[in-house]
Amino acid sequence: MSQLARVQSFGVSQDGVGAGENQTLDQPFGEGVDPADLHAWRFATASWPGNALEGSRGLDDYLMHDYDYNIGAEIMGRNKFGPIRGAWQDEEWQGWWGDNPPFHTPVFVLTHHERPSFTLGDTTFHFIDASPAEALAEAKAAADGKDVRIGGGVATVRQFLDADLIDAMHIAVSPITIGKGLRLWDTPQDLEDRFVIESVPSASGVTHHFFWRR
Amino acid sequence: MSQLARVQSFGVSQDGVGAGENQTLDQPFGEGVDPADLHAWRFATASWPGNALEGSRGLDDYLMHDYDYNIGAEIMGRNKFGPIRGAWQDEEWQGWWGDNPPFHTPVFVLTHHERPSFTLGDTTFHFIDASPAEALAEAKAAADGKDVRIGGGVATVRQFLDADLIDAMHIAVSPITIGKGLRLWDTPQDLEDRFVIESVPSASGVTHHFFWRR
Repeated sequence: MSQLARVQSFGVSQDGVGAGENQTLDQPFGEGVDPADLHAWRFATASWPGNALEGSRGLDDYLMHDYDYNIGAEIMGRNKFGPIRGAWQDEEWQGWWGDNPPFHTPVFVLTHHERPSFTLGDTTFHFIDASPAEALAEAKAAADGKDVRIGGGVATVRQFLDADLIDAMHIAVSPITIGKGLRLWDTPQDLEDRFVIESVPSASGVTHHFFWRR
Repeated sequence: MSQLARVQSFGVSQDGVGAGENQTLDQPFGEGVDPADLHAWRFATASWPGNALEGSRGLDDYLMHDYDYNIGAEIMGRNKFGPIRGAWQDEEWQGWWGDNPPFHTPVFVLTHHERPSFTLGDTTFHFIDASPAEALAEAKAAADGKDVRIGGGVATVRQFLDADLIDAMHIAVSPITIGKGLRLWDTPQDLEDRFVIESVPSASGVTHHFFWRR
């Protein structure tokens, strides 16, 4: 187990929703999901860009800046990369993150519609039509001995969980209920047959759940 | 506040004791302090050397591997470096940590008895006779823009607290009582006039206290 597949700092609501349906350019998290609610805990930390002077330096901040720890590559679903569905209309869309995306590693985007790799800052996006196991093998090979982050969205994390390819997870549950949307789980206990689960309430109202293989 | 002075992952007992009196070669933590008790929580984590397959990957593990996060230099007291008191008998003693000390940065050892710097692995030890403020300025200059860890022991952390030079701290309080020894505080609340304090109980029985400047 020298290289792990890990989910880090993935946010869902009290009822397990991580994103809404019908994602668009204006609603990157889909209908009914406002990142200002679901990810409020991150925005309050010192590690959030621009917050150094004002942000909190408690538990949430540690988990926020840990996001990159020992990560050498990321795998994401196509819907995390962008709102486009079906064939690429053009190849101008380069993701939500501007000139210097926050990954700083190779990123493998799972899609049935391949396109050429490109580099922004120190992040290189590759587009691969592959099974979870194949994608993980490819990402591990690119990760320079480090771990691979399964970056989401919800459907991608579920796909890797269903294929039993996840070694460890940190999921942040925010104290809000969304109701409708893409659901990671009914309760964290759904996973307790395969994972040790540790649940830690934070001062912000978020509960951090840590999972690792039994 | 681009470079902080931080205490990371510093362990004390329920009654605030971090080390015993009369430190010797055989008792690096001094009389009455067994690291197997005071630091048990670290040894159980996946990040502790050799534990990758067996260790826990919950909160304690995150705080264990965070020890190095954005640290560019360490300042330690002479008693953390070794059990020698007074003038150096010889300069053969190179610390407790073998050929590859776990610091991987410049380390500034506060001592009234200077000696030449030396390098082991990617750690370079410098010996300086300086006030806390002078030492911090020197360590910041060597830290390549990163933060400086105030590494201990207890007397050194106290000295930097008393000089109001600490920006943030993580102190791990183990569920044991030691009674006699070198004490960091009577209670964490001693510091609440200057610091926001967040206290998080961990599954291991340890309570992690986070402090940052108000």
